[in-house]
Amino acid sequence: MPQLNNFRKDKTGNMKYGAGFLFLFCFLIACRQPSTGPAAIVVQTDFGVKDGAVAAMKGVASGVDNRISIVDLTHEIPAYNVWEAAYRLNQVMVYWPAKTVFVSVVDPGVGTERKSVVIRTRTGQYLVTPDNGTATLVAASLGIESVRLIDEERNRREGSDSSYTFHGRDVYMYTAARLAAGKISFEEVGPEYKNSLQKIPYQAPVNARGLIRGNIPVLDPQYGNVWTNVPDSLLRVSGIRNGDSLNVAIRFKDALVYSGKLRLANTFGAVAEGESLAYLNSLMNFSLAINMGSFAERFKIRSGPDWNITIFKE
Amino acid sequence: MPQLNNFRKDKTGNMKYGAGFLFLFCFLIACRQPSTGPAAIVVQTDFGVKDGAVAAMKGVASGVDNRISIVDLTHEIPAYNVWEAAYRLNQVMVYWPAKTVFVSVVDPGVGTERKSVVIRTRTGQYLVTPDNGTATLVAASLGIESVRLIDEERNRREGSDSSYTFHGRDVYMYTAARLAAGKISFEEVGPEYKNSLQKIPYQAPVNARGLIRGNIPVLDPQYGNVWTNVPDSLLRVSGIRNGDSLNVAIRFKDALVYSGKLRLANTFGAVAEGESLAYLNSLMNFSLAINMGSFAERFKIRSGPDWNITIFKE
Amino acid sequence: MPQLNNFRKDKTGNMKYGAGFLFLFCFLIACRQPSTGPAAIVVQTDFGVKDGAVAAMKGVASGVDNRISIVDLTHEIPAYNVWEAAYRLNQVMVYWPAKTVFVSVVDPGVGTERKSVVIRTRTGQYLVTPDNGTATLVAASLGIESVRLIDEERNRREGSDSSYTFHGRDVYMYTAARLAAGKISFEEVGPEYKNSLQKIPYQAPVNARGLIRGNIPVLDPQYGNVWTNVPDSLLRVSGIRNGDSLNVAIRFKDALVYSGKLRLANTFGAVAEGESLAYLNSLMNFSLAINMGSFAERFKIRSGPDWNITIFKE
Repeated sequence: MPQLNNFRKDKTGNMKYGAGFLFLFCFLIACRQPSTGPAAIVVQTDFGVKDGAVAAMKGVASGVDNRISIVDLTHEIPAYNVWEAAYRLNQVMVYWPAKTVFVSVVDPGVGTERKSVVIRTRTGQYLVTPDNGTATLVAASLGIESVRLIDEERNRREGSDSSYTFHGRDVYMYTAARLAAGKISFEEVGPEYKNSLQKIPYQAPVNARGLIRGNIPVLDPQYGNVWTNVPDSLLRVSGIRNGDSLNVAIRFKDALVYSGKLRLANTFGAVAEGESLAYLNSLMNFSLAINMGSFAERFKIRSGPDWNITIFKE
Repeated sequence: MPQLNNFRKDKTGNMKYGAGFLFLFCFLIACRQPSTGPAAIVVQTDFGVKDGAVAAMKGVASGVDNRISIVDLTHEIPAYNVWEAAYRLNQVMVYWPAKTVFVSVVDPGVGTERKSVVIRTRTGQYLVTPDNGTATLVAASLGIESVRLIDEERNRREGSDSSYTFHGRDVYMYTAARLAAGKISFEEVGPEYKNSLQKIPYQAPVNARGLIRGNIPVLDPQYGNVWTNVPDSLLRVSGIRNGDSLNVAIRFKDALVYSGKLRLANTFGAVAEGESLAYLNSLMNFSLAINMGSFAERFKIRSGPDWNITIFKE
Repeated sequence: MPQLNNFRKDKTGNMKYGAGFLFLFCFLIACRQPSTGPAAIVVQTDFGVKDGAVAAMKGVASGVDNRISIVDLTHEIPAYNVWEAAYRLNQVMVYWPAKTVFVSVVDPGVGTERKSVVIRTRTGQYLVTPDNGTATLVAASLGIESVRLIDEERNRREGSDSSYTFHGRDVYMYTAARLAAGKISFEEVGPEYKNSLQKIPYQAPVNARGLIRGNIPVLDPQYGNVWTNVPDSLLRVSGIRNGDSLNVAIRFKDALVYSGKLRLANTFGAVAEGESLAYLNSLMNFSLAINMGSFAERFKIRSGPDWNITIFKE
C-alpha cells in the first residue's frame, strides 16, 4: 500500500508539476505580447496616382500577407528621374525603423539588362530597386551593409507570365512583401551582388578654404524653397552662425543664375513678407526661401546634379 | 487512512478546482477578443504629395508602434491656409470613432512663439495642432472638452536635435503616435492649456427676420460646387422646403458677386444639364451647383472668411 | 478499497485525460495562427484628394472595425467618368486576394433611381457600386458569380439622416466595412439582384480576317502612352510576333486620327529616343509609345468607348 500510495502520490505529484509547467507554458503563450506583425513597406514610383498600377502592386503584397501596412512615399517622382528618386529615399528612410522595406520603381532601363537588387543599409532598412543610381544618396548617408541580386526564378509572383513581367509588381513588390512578412530571409532574395552599385555623380558638400560648395538636389515642391545638400554641421565647422549675412551664388553648370546676400535665420518671420532668407530645412540642410513666396520661381532656380551652390561668409 | 484518503482527496479536489480555475483563466486569456490595437491617426498638411515630409512623419509613428493605421485626410491644403485646414477637420472628424488622433500641420507661425496643443473634443477625438485657429470650426460643432499644451521636453522624438525641430514630425506625429498607442495618457501630453484657443472670425449661419446669412467656407474642389455653412436645420426652421424657389446673393466683403433665383432640389437631375440649382451637400449644408458644370467657375465665386451668402424665400 | 482505489484512480485518470484534452484545447487556441484579420477595402472615387469626403468614408469603416486596411485605388477618376472607373477596376481587381472588397463611387446618377449593388466575381472579390456600367469590364474578364441589391434599411450607417444620405459614405463604405470585417455575410447585403447589370458598349478585341479591331479604353496618364484592349493572346493567334512591323490606325468614331507603321518591341530601348513603337503593357495589352516621349500628346489621341484601333500585319 505505501508503495502504491507513493506511486500514486508520485503520479499525482508528477501530474501536478507537469500541469504546473503546462499551465505556465500555456499561460505564457496566451499572454505573450501581441505580435507587432510584419514590417511596413514604403513605396515610391513615377506612376502618378491616376493609374491603377500602384494599387495592383499593393494587391500583390496583400496576397502575400494582408497585415502588411503599405505606405506611399510618393508616386509623383518626375517620369524616369532617378536622381529625385534617390533624393526622396534619402529624405525619408532614416525616419523608419529597421526592417522596413522600401520599394522604388523609377526605372528608365526597364526591359534592358539592368539588374534588380535588394540593399540592406547599415541602419537595417531594406531597399528593393533597379541598380540605376537610386541608392546613391542613401549609400552616402546611411551606408550599405549588403546587397543581394534578386533571383527572379524564385522571387516572382506565381502566374506572372515568363514572357513578360511588370517588375514593380511581379518581382519588386512580391519580394518586398515576402521579406516584410518574414516568408523569406534577406539571404533568400538571391546571391550576393558582385557589381558595384551604380552611382550618380554630384557635388558633395565641402569647404574649400572658406568657400562652401554644394548641390541643389531638389526644390521644396510645395513652397518653392530651394534645398541644398549642405548640412548644418558643415556650416558650423565653417564658423557660420544664425543671424550671419552670407554671400550665396547658384550656378547651372558654369552659368551664374543667382547671386545675393542673405541672412541665415531660424524662422521665416525673421524677415518681412516677400523678403529672401537662408534657413535650415527639416533635414538640417542649408536652404533658401522667400517669406510667403517662392524663391525658385522668382529667381528661376531648378534642381538636379548640374545645379550647384556656393556660400561665403565675409 | 480515511484521513489520508480525505486529505489526498482534498488535495486532488483542490487541484482539480485549482486546475479548473486556471484552465478557465487560461482559456479566457487565450480566447479573448483579438485586440483592435492602437487608435488610428488621421493627418492633414499643406506639404503636398510630391515631397517626402509626410512619409518621414509616418516613419516616426511606425517607430512608436508599427500597428498604427495612418490615414491621409489631405496634404493639399493651400500653403498656410489655416481656414481651409479648419474646414477640412470639421468635415471629417465627426465620422471617426472616439480616440482617433488627428494631426494638422498647417503652420504659418512655425518658428515663432505659437503654442502646440492637443485638444480633446466632447466627442472624444484628439487633435494635435498649432494653436492658430485650426480648431475654430470643430470647437463650434463638436465642442472642446479639454486642451493640453505639448510638453516638448518629454514629448519629442529622440535624436531630434534640440537646436532645430521639424515640429510636424518630431513633436506632433511623435506625440500623436504615443497617444494613439496608449504609451502616454492625454494628461501626459503636458499641462492644461491656460490660454483661450485662437479663433478665426466668420459669419455664423443666422436667420435675421427671414434673411438667412452664412459663409462660403470652401468650394467643392472637384466639381466647382459652392458650399456654405448654412445647415439644413436652419433652412427647415425658416420654412424652406425642397422645391422652393430662393433668392440667393453672394458677396465678397461688401461687393455683390452673384445674385439669382434658384430652386432647392434634392438631386442634380432635377434641372437640365448646364442649369443652376441649390442642394444639400454631404454635410447637410446649403450648396450651389450647375448640373454637369462648375458654379464657382462660371460666376467667379471663391471661398474664405470674407465670402458670404444671403438666402431669402419670397 | 480496490474499488475505491479504482474509482479514485479512474477519477484521477479521467482528470488527467480531461486535463490533457483541456491543455491541448487551450494550447491550440493559444497557439493558433494570428488571425490575418478583416479583408482589405480598396476604394476609388472621382472626389480628388483635396476634399475630406474620402477621409470621412474611411472614418466610417474605422468605426466598424479599426483593423480594416483601406487602400486607395485612385480618387482621380475624371468627374462622372464611369467608363474610366470600369477600366481602373479591371486593371486592379485581379491582383487582390479573394474576399477583398472594392468600393467604387463614380455616380452621375446619385439621387436618381439608380440601384446600389454588391457584386461577387467568380474569382471571389467583392465590388460595391452603383449599377451604372462600372462593372462592364470586370464582368467580361473575371466573370460575375452573384449580385445583391443593397438593402438600405439594414445597411446604412446609424445616424445618417433618412432624408439625405451620402451613399458613398453612409451606405457603400458602411456595407463594405461590415462585409470585410465579417459582420454581415454576402447574403445579408440584401436580396438577389433581379435586373441585368448595366453595360457600356465598346469594341471588344477581335480578329476579322487578319484585321485586328480593338478599343483605346484609357491613356497611361503618366507617360502619355496609348493603351488598347487587344491582348497579347489575340496577337499571338493572329501570327504577330515581337519585332514584327505593323500597320496601325486609330479612329475617333469614323474619323481617322492616326495611321502609321510601328515595330512591336519588348523594350522601349529597342527604338531611338523620340521614336514610336508598339509594346505590351503591364496588362499584357497592345500599347503605343514614344521612347522618352508622349504618343498621345504628339498625335492627339484620347480614349473612351468611341476611340478604336485597327492593327494589320502585312
